[in-house]
Amino acid sequence: MLAFEKTEYMARVNQTKEQMAAKGMDVLLVTDPANMCYLSGYDALSFYTPQAVVVSTQQDQPVWIGRFQDLVCAQETCWMDQGNFIAYPDYYLWEPTEKHVMDFVADFLKGKGLAGSVMGVEMDAYYFTAFWFERLKKDLPNAGFLDATLLVNRIRAVKSPQEIVYMKKAAAILEKGMQRAVDVINEGVRECDAAAEIYHDLISGTASAGGDYPSLAPIMPSGKRTGGAHLTWTEEKYQKDQIVYVEFAGCYKRYHAPMARTIYIGNPPPEIEETAKVVVEGLNMAMETAKPGATCEEIERAWKSVITKYGIEKESRMGYDIGLSYPPVWMQHTMHMRPGDKSVLKPNMTFHLMPGVWRGDFGVAITESIRITENGCETLAAFPRKLFVK
Amino acid sequence: MLAFEKTEYMARVNQTKEQMAAKGMDVLLVTDPANMCYLSGYDALSFYTPQAVVVSTQQDQPVWIGRFQDLVCAQETCWMDQGNFIAYPDYYLWEPTEKHVMDFVADFLKGKGLAGSVMGVEMDAYYFTAFWFERLKKDLPNAGFLDATLLVNRIRAVKSPQEIVYMKKAAAILEKGMQRAVDVINEGVRECDAAAEIYHDLISGTASAGGDYPSLAPIMPSGKRTGGAHLTWTEEKYQKDQIVYVEFAGCYKRYHAPMARTIYIGNPPPEIEETAKVVVEGLNMAMETAKPGATCEEIERAWKSVITKYGIEKESRMGYDIGLSYPPVWMQHTMHMRPGDKSVLKPNMTFHLMPGVWRGDFGVAITESIRITENGCETLAAFPRKLFVK
Repeated sequence: MLAFEKTEYMARVNQTKEQMAAKGMDVLLVTDPANMCYLSGYDALSFYTPQAVVVSTQQDQPVWIGRFQDLVCAQETCWMDQGNFIAYPDYYLWEPTEKHVMDFVADFLKGKGLAGSVMGVEMDAYYFTAFWFERLKKDLPNAGFLDATLLVNRIRAVKSPQEIVYMKKAAAILEKGMQRAVDVINEGVRECDAAAEIYHDLISGTASAGGDYPSLAPIMPSGKRTGGAHLTWTEEKYQKDQIVYVEFAGCYKRYHAPMARTIYIGNPPPEIEETAKVVVEGLNMAMETAKPGATCEEIERAWKSVITKYGIEKESRMGYDIGLSYPPVWMQHTMHMRPGDKSVLKPNMTFHLMPGVWRGDFGVAITESIRITENGCETLAAFPRKLFVK
Repeated sequence: MLAFEKTEYMARVNQTKEQMAAKGMDVLLVTDPANMCYLSGYDALSFYTPQAVVVSTQQDQPVWIGRFQDLVCAQETCWMDQGNFIAYPDYYLWEPTEKHVMDFVADFLKGKGLAGSVMGVEMDAYYFTAFWFERLKKDLPNAGFLDATLLVNRIRAVKSPQEIVYMKKAAAILEKGMQRAVDVINEGVRECDAAAEIYHDLISGTASAGGDYPSLAPIMPSGKRTGGAHLTWTEEKYQKDQIVYVEFAGCYKRYHAPMARTIYIGNPPPEIEETAKVVVEGLNMAMETAKPGATCEEIERAWKSVITKYGIEKESRMGYDIGLSYPPVWMQHTMHMRPGDKSVLKPNMTFHLMPGVWRGDFGVAITESIRITENGCETLAAFPRKLFVK
């Protein structure tokens, strides 16, 4: 039932320990659900209550700490030996209790003789709240705390062969969903009904790969709402002469392959047609530039060189690294196609090139998920890169 | 396009200001996406980057602060006047920038003369990270900070008539999805294909109510995996003599109506049949107890009086308040059916009574979303309360 061989998990943990040692950390408290899954395999919809994977430089295996009712979830999905699963009772959760899960975590560390450790915590990761940190500091007055935000994320940057297999399966699921989107978005169809068809295909997946739930619901605004970057569907019916864009991901074993396409119901006005052409030309240029040794900011510069020629501006980044993730988003947070990001591309890094252009009263997004190859890049999915006209 | 009348939003803001005044707060930084939506109407899939709604006792209207590419999302979904939407450029996001969105928030407050305010922050709310708080304290050395976790959540406890309308629509969507689950879960069907059918109906919704994305993906383990509380589907096919439980919510305009049902494919063993009967009997007893004036812990006690009789234990809470929410969960965090919670039930509070019983190698969950009425309670959805045998 494990998503990866035990040896792969152990290699990830060892890489993490090396990073910890380099930064002087004895203990790492991993609370980002994606990082928890990466190191332990843990995969459950339980990240709405506090949980953690604890890596210690003194221990071979990480320890999962979670809610008692999730203990079986950990035993079913993690690779570690029994004895490395520590569950807290509900008593530690919510008011009016005076206990907090971080007290339980602190007691665990005290029991292991680690109360005076130098501890890495993911200060700016989702779910690691300000309160958790205040409580930990109070509970462990002799501990030292270091910011470990992105420490594990960075290890996730280059994908293993098995991870690439999963991302390609995610991409195959994505292709199916995107074809469905292009097919069902038509005048007179309720937006929610189109979303339902897309969801169906993303979850059903392909004959050889069942879909997992994507970390973000489909973004699929229409008309004027396409001017914003993160609106979903409504109950309204699509109308003639309406622009629609859809952005969603296929997901397989928590690995994501996102993509956006833009659809016009009717004859697109020249401004939209022209914008779409520029976006595709810029995206193609970015992809030609994407190869080992290039930097993230160079990819963005290549894109910008095209759009500037046509008088189009894009204020936001035009891409980011992707892979394993949990809600609320499928990005990995470590690399961004934008000025100043000098991260160097390597084979088997994966990115979502996201040239969405929001122009006030309409937006166009035509994007690709790519893998860096030995001498260039390839798209994860195969889907026509154009404005679709219905 | 607003989900509620402007007057309803203003009443919510005024209630918030009253609570702020009572606690001595000049400014409230609302970062929980559900609380942001409740006060401003803001509804977009953008909570993966920092954003906030700022309420000041000195200002009539709250101010939305978010990413520039989401400005149109705010203008499309919020009720406030133009001028109350403040957008930050991408420059404030991610490494290698030296700026953080909290610097932008702090500059905004300085500009309004509020740098020395007493400020409420939602210390233990999702997405308010430890880093955000450290940065705010550094940026605003003259400000005072108070913990405002759950301040707005508590105002959300009693639902307005319009909110109840939305929750009932969510429940109608839920009924459709649950019927689909009972229909499609059969021997030989891939779990992902069943999940796809369920998702389809939850998103398509009913003829009069299109579904919104639920805050949590369907929880639907089978066999031994039902022993854990938060596992989803796999790619495997359902087998004969297998237990399955499903827990998911209908969602309408971000209001949720969750429910769980348990299905047995084949002839259920006596232990499972008996557990299901006890769960239903305990749930019925809890519902008989649920009325205005009763406390949360009394509801749990009524449930426990039944299951204890049969030698069944449940360590975790057996219910919680529900309503408006965003990922990662549909709970409201303020009331819990468990010992010690003396919250008093009032008409138009809404709860998910969640008597899930996890017994090691199997679990049974048969649950109801309820509304407290003038003299008792009613379920939001109508669906047979029993073990389904296929």
